[in-house]
Amino acid sequence: MTYCVGLRLDRGIIFASDTRTNAGFDNIASFRKMHVWEEKGDRVLVLLGAGNLSVSQSVVSLLTEDIADPGHDEDGRNLLNAGTMFQAARIVGEALREVHMTNGETLGPNAAAFQASFVLGGQIKGEAPRLFQIYNEGNFIEATTDTPFFQIGEHKYGKPILDRVAVPEMRMGDAAKLLLISFDSTLRSNLSVGMPIDMLIYRTDTFFVGEQSRIEADDPYFRSLSMGWSEALRDAFANIESYTNGD
Amino acid sequence: MTYCVGLRLDRGIIFASDTRTNAGFDNIASFRKMHVWEEKGDRVLVLLGAGNLSVSQSVVSLLTEDIADPGHDEDGRNLLNAGTMFQAARIVGEALREVHMTNGETLGPNAAAFQASFVLGGQIKGEAPRLFQIYNEGNFIEATTDTPFFQIGEHKYGKPILDRVAVPEMRMGDAAKLLLISFDSTLRSNLSVGMPIDMLIYRTDTFFVGEQSRIEADDPYFRSLSMGWSEALRDAFANIESYTNGD
Repeated sequence: MTYCVGLRLDRGIIFASDTRTNAGFDNIASFRKMHVWEEKGDRVLVLLGAGNLSVSQSVVSLLTEDIADPGHDEDGRNLLNAGTMFQAARIVGEALREVHMTNGETLGPNAAAFQASFVLGGQIKGEAPRLFQIYNEGNFIEATTDTPFFQIGEHKYGKPILDRVAVPEMRMGDAAKLLLISFDSTLRSNLSVGMPIDMLIYRTDTFFVGEQSRIEADDPYFRSLSMGWSEALRDAFANIESYTNGD
Repeated sequence: MTYCVGLRLDRGIIFASDTRTNAGFDNIASFRKMHVWEEKGDRVLVLLGAGNLSVSQSVVSLLTEDIADPGHDEDGRNLLNAGTMFQAARIVGEALREVHMTNGETLGPNAAAFQASFVLGGQIKGEAPRLFQIYNEGNFIEATTDTPFFQIGEHKYGKPILDRVAVPEMRMGDAAKLLLISFDSTLRSNLSVGMPIDMLIYRTDTFFVGEQSRIEADDPYFRSLSMGWSEALRDAFANIESYTNGD
């Protein structure tokens, strides 16, 4: 499995993804699940993929080939010439449908195992930053102020802290801390999500990738965050009054 | 959906279950998911059920009928005459298989929607308290000191806090607080789990149900716990150093 999050804030969008891929527990590998397209001064697009690796990788390859050779597609549209993020999300959805169509008939009853979903975020000149979640069927939804984040993959463990803390006014350093805590909860409870974590911070109206980092298991900040959060949770737990009916 | 937890401690076993059942979002109802069999001085058995309500209710009805009329089954075994908790878990597993067999042929391709799983815990005179998780296929596993709790239903949201805090030495009042925090996280993040919460505390070697309560949404303790926990989480979050690369 996988865990990926995109969080849209007033100051920009922050993305994080794990790197573990497994086909059964004895076949575990690391793959990059964060893909970036950048034209400095014009656009930044970030795509996070979850689900079947053959599907998500094929989608990324199609998107990349469409850019390298715009003529090979009848409409010539690609992520670098899309006029809006909405158009970009449609292009990703169409690429996903194309992969499903290509594989479709041969999968038969195993089709359910060949699912993928994506988080797409970024900014194209002329628009504010936008964030989308693209489903396996190629349809998609956009993040709003009410729900500023999207998660794909093993999203449940890390959702309670996002539900409680994520607000559009957050500073980027706090948002990065929040995503890493959400990852820490997921990593502790689910073996199929693994370090390192890829993180990317995009700041509104900069139109280039400012900060991108790969956080390894022995990263001093992540280790101190992980231990500090455990301690803080245990302290918080100890400070809440016990249930009165038991001792 | 459903959320149920059983936690086995040195001092006894604590159980909690929600009460929401839904068949689509416009058909929501409350059903008891906690079932108790007690013979004072000899045994207490508690069964929590998740999954398809028609299946889990049928299992409980079969178990109850086997007790009322021990002769109707060829072996005459039931939850009140089982010699060990292991035998009791087998009886539940067999009842579940019988329900699947009865429904089986008519379900056809919808069979996947007719799944159920159970947590069974309690104590029978002559043994220590034991806790089991029974799968849809009727097989089961037993809780150990390493993993003292079982969850069924929507278990992921509430797992991180259990993973961090649950230890066999806990006092029962703290264990009750822990389960309610785990429920609070689940309730906030998933609409299909709903109040009220049924809770039961069984204390080792008492052989009767000491404390059983239904916690409603307006319960003063639960409300203060829910607010206190949110505040404590936000404080804990604020007290962790921000990620250095962003502001």
